Amino acid sequence: MNQKASALLIVGSMAFDDLELPTIAAKNVVGGSATYSAYAASVFSPVRLVAIVGEDFPSGDLEALSRRNVDLAGIERASGKTFRWAGRYDTNLVGRVTLETQLNVFADFRPKLPKSYVDSPFVLLGNIHPALQIEVLDQVDSPKLVIADTMNFWIEGEPETLAQMLQRIHLLVINEEEARQLSGQYNISRAARDILRRGPKALIVKRGEYGALYFDGESTFFAPAYPLEEVVDPTGAGDTFVGALAGYLARSGDLSGPGMRRAIMAGSAAASFCVEAVGTAKVGRLTISDISARLDLFRNLMHVAHDTSLSAS
Amino acid sequence: MNQKASALLIVGSMAFDDLELPTIAAKNVVGGSATYSAYAASVFSPVRLVAIVGEDFPSGDLEALSRRNVDLAGIERASGKTFRWAGRYDTNLVGRVTLETQLNVFADFRPKLPKSYVDSPFVLLGNIHPALQIEVLDQVDSPKLVIADTMNFWIEGEPETLAQMLQRIHLLVINEEEARQLSGQYNISRAARDILRRGPKALIVKRGEYGALYFDGESTFFAPAYPLEEVVDPTGAGDTFVGALAGYLARSGDLSGPGMRRAIMAGSAAASFCVEAVGTAKVGRLTISDISARLDLFRNLMHVAHDTSLSAS
Repeated sequence: MNQKASALLIVGSMAFDDLELPTIAAKNVVGGSATYSAYAASVFSPVRLVAIVGEDFPSGDLEALSRRNVDLAGIERASGKTFRWAGRYDTNLVGRVTLETQLNVFADFRPKLPKSYVDSPFVLLGNIHPALQIEVLDQVDSPKLVIADTMNFWIEGEPETLAQMLQRIHLLVINEEEARQLSGQYNISRAARDILRRGPKALIVKRGEYGALYFDGESTFFAPAYPLEEVVDPTGAGDTFVGALAGYLARSGDLSGPGMRRAIMAGSAAASFCVEAVGTAKVGRLTISDISARLDLFRNLMHVAHDTSLSAS
Repeated sequence: MNQKASALLIVGSMAFDDLELPTIAAKNVVGGSATYSAYAASVFSPVRLVAIVGEDFPSGDLEALSRRNVDLAGIERASGKTFRWAGRYDTNLVGRVTLETQLNVFADFRPKLPKSYVDSPFVLLGNIHPALQIEVLDQVDSPKLVIADTMNFWIEGEPETLAQMLQRIHLLVINEEEARQLSGQYNISRAARDILRRGPKALIVKRGEYGALYFDGESTFFAPAYPLEEVVDPTGAGDTFVGALAGYLARSGDLSGPGMRRAIMAGSAAASFCVEAVGTAKVGRLTISDISARLDLFRNLMHVAHDTSLSAS
């Protein structure tokens, strides 16, 4: 681990997922946005986690996070059951339907930061109610970088609170449909221009198997996704992407355009591992050298030698 | 123009398109796969065109092609009307419906190569009946590279003839849905592996605004599409892509993996101009320096500096 890596505060959900995958049904899979993001970020930087779990959440899974340099002082264990999500994926692992959502203890989640978290220089706000995202920001001193995720549910149901949240963050990470919904623009470049006017300095639009686009108003970056032959479980891929990206930035401290591009590639590399196994089986064991090896594959996937003959002719 | 550029034989359709675009309706737009491909290829190499037009096809458009180093000896002007396609695009220019197809003289098209075309070292078989694509190949000596396009219509209706055609080409260029249909595999990497077993040495899977993937069994390349803010008319973008790619290869003669990647980028650059205007208004006037300037934008879009700190840590 780089000595200079800064601490990354992550807030989000911890959950049990019941997954109906095309060939496997897996119950009680430990998941949630905070879990995936924390594991992925911990490859690069120390993580400070804020989340709520119920009495039924396995201690072994908390210990596993702790062994990976994830600080659990901000985990609240409440009486009741852990948040549970049940979903069924289609045969091609592209679409999914929610079969059941049990909020359980998550329904009353009010993130409270331990004193030791207040100076966190990097903050990742997972997809929770934008009012709670703001509450978290109210409790941190003056973070160097705030990254937020959101989803269609809040875009539709909490537009005003979401608008306030957008004014307080640096980087928004959302998927393509959400970018369209938030901006009212179908064209993604126009959608990005609109969203950048609402507060964030930069935007990442996730496109699943088609990769991601990064916009900061000055330049645009097209990041590929790795065309894997074997995708087992896409659950948590987006949270893994943003977690690794945030951890990478907390480690490098380089928030320049080129630094953001490298962080996006680290996120893509981590996400490409995530989907190769059920739940956090792979993302929970990622190492820097795994990421480094996959980044080599990505470099090959993207490499084009400059054709100097065209400008010469 | 590079002195060493080889001649590229292009066979395909020439047509009138009646286009209902979201904000413009344009009738009698000169189009067709051969037209778009020939204009795009002519930026890089001399083109030999094989197609059929009716009595109503404007001489001015043939002259415009001729001025761009497109040899028209293989154009047959038949009695009757030119092929006509009418289509309506949806508001977002993503989907389109065919309103009318009038084959007209195209119904009896049997490509006959002038003697001067027989030695063509590069061949681009546009999307016509696979039996006709084979007839063209029967008339050429021993081309260095044969590129073919096809579509869902032939995959479904002419699987056996298509299978024969695939045995005789080097590079197949199809879109994502067609790759899935042809292979019976949803996963694109697996679809590619299956298709490469059927004959072609290499495969390009076009993904519209998401770019393209290139597979040759040894390496995979993920080419972006340029995230344009203004798309006016997507008609002919795929034909422009493959035309520029083929012309680029005829010019460079470099069929190595890196050479193919550069050709794909030239195709992407040309296609990004095509969609900026109705019909061939832009692709009919493209220059090497236009392409070169857009390739600079693409390089910026794809650039990531190598992070040596990861492997060092």
